[in-house]
Amino acid sequence: MTVETKSRKKEAHSIILAAGMGTRMKSKRSKVLHEVSGLPMIEIVLRLAREVSKKITVIVSEENQKEINVLLKEGEKSIIQKERLGTGHAVNIALESIMQSDAEKVLILYGDTPLVRVETLEDIINKNNDVTFLGFINQDSSNKYGRLVTEGEKLIEIIEFKDATDEQRQISICNSGVVCVERNFIIDAINKLEPSNVTGEYYLTDIAHIANSQSKKCGFILCSENEVIGVNSREDLFLVDSIMQERIKKIHMQNGVTFLLPQTIYVHLDAKIEKDVLIEQGCFIGKSVEIKEDVTVRAFSHLEGCILESGVIVGPFARIRPKSFLDKNARVGNFVEVKNAKIGKDSKANHLAYLGDVTVEEGCNIGAGTIFCNYNGFEKFHSNVGKGSFIGSNSTIVSPVNVASGTIIGAGSVIVSSTQEDTLVIARAKEISIIGGGKKFRDKKKK
Amino acid sequence: MTVETKSRKKEAHSIILAAGMGTRMKSKRSKVLHEVSGLPMIEIVLRLAREVSKKITVIVSEENQKEINVLLKEGEKSIIQKERLGTGHAVNIALESIMQSDAEKVLILYGDTPLVRVETLEDIINKNNDVTFLGFINQDSSNKYGRLVTEGEKLIEIIEFKDATDEQRQISICNSGVVCVERNFIIDAINKLEPSNVTGEYYLTDIAHIANSQSKKCGFILCSENEVIGVNSREDLFLVDSIMQERIKKIHMQNGVTFLLPQTIYVHLDAKIEKDVLIEQGCFIGKSVEIKEDVTVRAFSHLEGCILESGVIVGPFARIRPKSFLDKNARVGNFVEVKNAKIGKDSKANHLAYLGDVTVEEGCNIGAGTIFCNYNGFEKFHSNVGKGSFIGSNSTIVSPVNVASGTIIGAGSVIVSSTQEDTLVIARAKEISIIGGGKKFRDKKKK
Amino acid sequence: MTVETKSRKKEAHSIILAAGMGTRMKSKRSKVLHEVSGLPMIEIVLRLAREVSKKITVIVSEENQKEINVLLKEGEKSIIQKERLGTGHAVNIALESIMQSDAEKVLILYGDTPLVRVETLEDIINKNNDVTFLGFINQDSSNKYGRLVTEGEKLIEIIEFKDATDEQRQISICNSGVVCVERNFIIDAINKLEPSNVTGEYYLTDIAHIANSQSKKCGFILCSENEVIGVNSREDLFLVDSIMQERIKKIHMQNGVTFLLPQTIYVHLDAKIEKDVLIEQGCFIGKSVEIKEDVTVRAFSHLEGCILESGVIVGPFARIRPKSFLDKNARVGNFVEVKNAKIGKDSKANHLAYLGDVTVEEGCNIGAGTIFCNYNGFEKFHSNVGKGSFIGSNSTIVSPVNVASGTIIGAGSVIVSSTQEDTLVIARAKEISIIGGGKKFRDKKKK
Repeated sequence: MTVETKSRKKEAHSIILAAGMGTRMKSKRSKVLHEVSGLPMIEIVLRLAREVSKKITVIVSEENQKEINVLLKEGEKSIIQKERLGTGHAVNIALESIMQSDAEKVLILYGDTPLVRVETLEDIINKNNDVTFLGFINQDSSNKYGRLVTEGEKLIEIIEFKDATDEQRQISICNSGVVCVERNFIIDAINKLEPSNVTGEYYLTDIAHIANSQSKKCGFILCSENEVIGVNSREDLFLVDSIMQERIKKIHMQNGVTFLLPQTIYVHLDAKIEKDVLIEQGCFIGKSVEIKEDVTVRAFSHLEGCILESGVIVGPFARIRPKSFLDKNARVGNFVEVKNAKIGKDSKANHLAYLGDVTVEEGCNIGAGTIFCNYNGFEKFHSNVGKGSFIGSNSTIVSPVNVASGTIIGAGSVIVSSTQEDTLVIARAKEISIIGGGKKFRDKKKK
Repeated sequence: MTVETKSRKKEAHSIILAAGMGTRMKSKRSKVLHEVSGLPMIEIVLRLAREVSKKITVIVSEENQKEINVLLKEGEKSIIQKERLGTGHAVNIALESIMQSDAEKVLILYGDTPLVRVETLEDIINKNNDVTFLGFINQDSSNKYGRLVTEGEKLIEIIEFKDATDEQRQISICNSGVVCVERNFIIDAINKLEPSNVTGEYYLTDIAHIANSQSKKCGFILCSENEVIGVNSREDLFLVDSIMQERIKKIHMQNGVTFLLPQTIYVHLDAKIEKDVLIEQGCFIGKSVEIKEDVTVRAFSHLEGCILESGVIVGPFARIRPKSFLDKNARVGNFVEVKNAKIGKDSKANHLAYLGDVTVEEGCNIGAGTIFCNYNGFEKFHSNVGKGSFIGSNSTIVSPVNVASGTIIGAGSVIVSSTQEDTLVIARAKEISIIGGGKKFRDKKKK
Repeated sequence: MTVETKSRKKEAHSIILAAGMGTRMKSKRSKVLHEVSGLPMIEIVLRLAREVSKKITVIVSEENQKEINVLLKEGEKSIIQKERLGTGHAVNIALESIMQSDAEKVLILYGDTPLVRVETLEDIINKNNDVTFLGFINQDSSNKYGRLVTEGEKLIEIIEFKDATDEQRQISICNSGVVCVERNFIIDAINKLEPSNVTGEYYLTDIAHIANSQSKKCGFILCSENEVIGVNSREDLFLVDSIMQERIKKIHMQNGVTFLLPQTIYVHLDAKIEKDVLIEQGCFIGKSVEIKEDVTVRAFSHLEGCILESGVIVGPFARIRPKSFLDKNARVGNFVEVKNAKIGKDSKANHLAYLGDVTVEEGCNIGAGTIFCNYNGFEKFHSNVGKGSFIGSNSTIVSPVNVASGTIIGAGSVIVSSTQEDTLVIARAKEISIIGGGKKFRDKKKK
């Protein structure tokens, strides 16, 4: 959704640094696998890279390689960085991969920086330099970013904050870390990096200096600071997710979607929503959701893995789970759970019901409190409710059954057998009335 | 709620421009019919106009006239603007209507600008000018609003942004479009407007110039920029709705209502809420809701068309639908839906139940999972539960039945007949136990 | 949570002013008893005071004394202020209590100002002055706070806003009201206060002047304005609660908790949440909740008084009520209410169920729509579900029953008797099918 797919030139070789520990996340899970708007951060960066790259190499850790490999497509590859000796070292690990590639530009990206826009990546690749760093403006002289020392369009060098003089700290052009380097130059320069006296790490930023010493063309472009927020803590994760959510909802609004209290609504990065859809407050639009024109998703509805055809109304308090399809004008109301189910055209399940593993054909009414018992502790079973059937309230349908079209099931029935067309079925115990029994019970209890 | 009703002088003739296409909304629905805090924008503007007007004329389009006419009261009238030749043209269409009216002031309002405050309208009408424009301050010289060229209290002319020189763009007094004109002058001036060389449209703003050329008194008043945000996109709609929601909740807070996480709560413009009411996070307070003193609406409750008497507690996760009345100290708990129902004093329905088309008298207990089956696929039926009755859990009441006072219904019963007072009724199948049958089943399945 | 417990020096005598009427709250409830993040404001201030005090005296009103006394611990005491003659008068009421104490510092706090940080209180107590006022910076010269006239570290006097000259109003150091005074000096000075000519009230701020006239050491420290927001209206209450909620969630994030849309989530001040917990949008984490590592609380879940062991997944739309314990990897799904219940390891209740007063042992499956009927209108009963049992969907368990381990209960059964181990129990009425009955019914209705 946020990366509009169009045909772009895919000429770079992207190196994505994703081996960072992320200790400040306080998590057993690798940092780049934490999710932003429904996708692992690294997956978002991979998607960005794919838009502009002919080759992708991901620098991973021993801990996260397996999970990251699952996300890679053909031709994409991960390399483990065992020691963590800085960004320069990380790129050095990819050196062989760079040498094997015919991509003329090498683009360094970060697995924990998912907000960079694809247009920015296009700009940095298209810049006619040997080295182009991505900078941003931050006026706060106490910020901890490296500073770009520039002359006009030229980048002279990058000074780490801790090495910077007071005067240098006044520079407001800061380093994002993202950089695009001409292939042959990076192959040459990466081996010229020297470890920092202080930390012993190899800084990729030093190639600015090296480029200038070789009279290479070294420059920079600027982007919004928001694009290059890196995630190092859960608070950063929240910030990045907030910005992503705003972007996502803004695009949907521009496409003709109305959100009530949008700040209370979560929308997955991949959600597809057509125009004249109304999504009320507090909804969760999860993974693999498609919502067609004129659908209303009422407050506090929770959608995952489903298609809602035009005219559908769900909620409030509806839960639509994966593999569900709601056909035109179907209605699913409050406290109703739908899972792996097809709800036919004009069919309704408006109140407190569980529709799991069922096909409801068109024009049916599923009464309040109806439960489809799809599970016996070992297997799941599927039922079918034929066209125009009426399932009375508080019924229990023990799957698998075939409720033939036109069946009417009396309220409160437990149905274990399939029905014939147009049958009326009732399974109901006889009422026994004990006149005065209510009073007697109360009198006894009140004593 | 946001327009406090008091007796105001109703002397103006309001012309409301509401014919705009609103293409940026990407909607089949006319722009002014999109809702803000539960009401179509045009309805909000109509209410504002009614506070200060003796006559109202709405300039509509062929597409939205029918729906707007439904909102008009006696004496209010719509006129179709077929061609869209600018604001001056729109007012020209109302010329006959203006001539027929004895209102001395003509007030031009916009159907897509619902945040203007009634006090601002009073001010503009009371201003002793022939022409008074409503301006606001915006310091951003790149904003696209027309600029008011002023001398002290005098308005010299209004320059459209695109026609403005760089110097004129530095003017921070901007044009909202709202204007109040002396009746005879507008009748005269409207025909003197000339179409723009560029767009061919007639701009109402030109009457400032005409007024000055005739030595008429032409001035302006200022309001907050927020009041004159016009809605042209779904993002604008969101912005306007946010401001309206803040206003609404602020007034309720001032009246003694506590909201938990107010930014997660939606409150309809017309909601009536008394003091010492607590509304927890994520509630939806919809159309026609009245909440009396000392009520608690717990988190994620959804209310429409209902009255909650003092001491009532609903939620969390309660859904109260239209035509419901909850008497003093009644309780409706989680995952309970109430529709067209009266819940008597001290009566409770605390867990997973559907109470549709039912009168529950005072002191009753409706057990968890109880469903009132009010619908047979064709008709809706009503039931009554007499004073002090106890409906056992998971019962099914097949309406219409009269559960007489003092009745006790055993858990899990399906009730199809009315009961006598103080009766104990049970409808329940016999338990059949197959000793070892559980193990046998599991053993078979595990194979 | 927000007051990290560590061993602090507890040397001050805190006087908490809590007698204010709070008329702008428009409430029957005393102002300081209104809640912030789940606790009465006065309780929060008491907790702060306890961190730094050896003695606490609370100045209360006749109306709120009873409720405040309930919150006091041994050695803490309340004194009624009948007349409201200003802060100086309120402290005078505590004079005897001050004289009886051996605390060398007297710290004046406010029951309606709960955001002050304990570190700030430590700073003010440790400041080597006879009198130290707590100030804050507010650049808005129209703000209504008293102004601190200072010379370097010295506080000359405090001028009430209404008595201040235009020049004095430019002072940006404002008075919070919080002040720490050397014991002997306050005993002396409090009687030297004179009533204001205008209001007749005694202002504690006058002791700055008195201190200087006696060549006492009078100074100030500064804190953030946020810390000293006093609550006088429901809008203030909202503001203070918002800031507290931000603080609470920030701490949890730092400890390794991820919140989705944190601004939609409410977290009680005392909630305990371990790392790698995911809390999705719109959750309510209420009083006495403990959430262990690796728990997922899905959207719109409502938790109070419960412990969730590691690996538990609840929600979306789960309601866990007090006295509930969910053992490792237990799952409670949508529209399920759990109350006073233990849910064993790996047990599941995933859909539309009510589990009240029940122990579910490990490895059980509670089917959709199952209701435990724990209440007969007079008493509550408890049931037990033995290890590995399977309760079929839409079953009704009429407590008290003992469902022995390995029991399988058929869907739709009403169970009133205890079962033997490994039994299969079914209580179900026979299906009666009337072939063509559905059609006949419809034909009749359609006529």
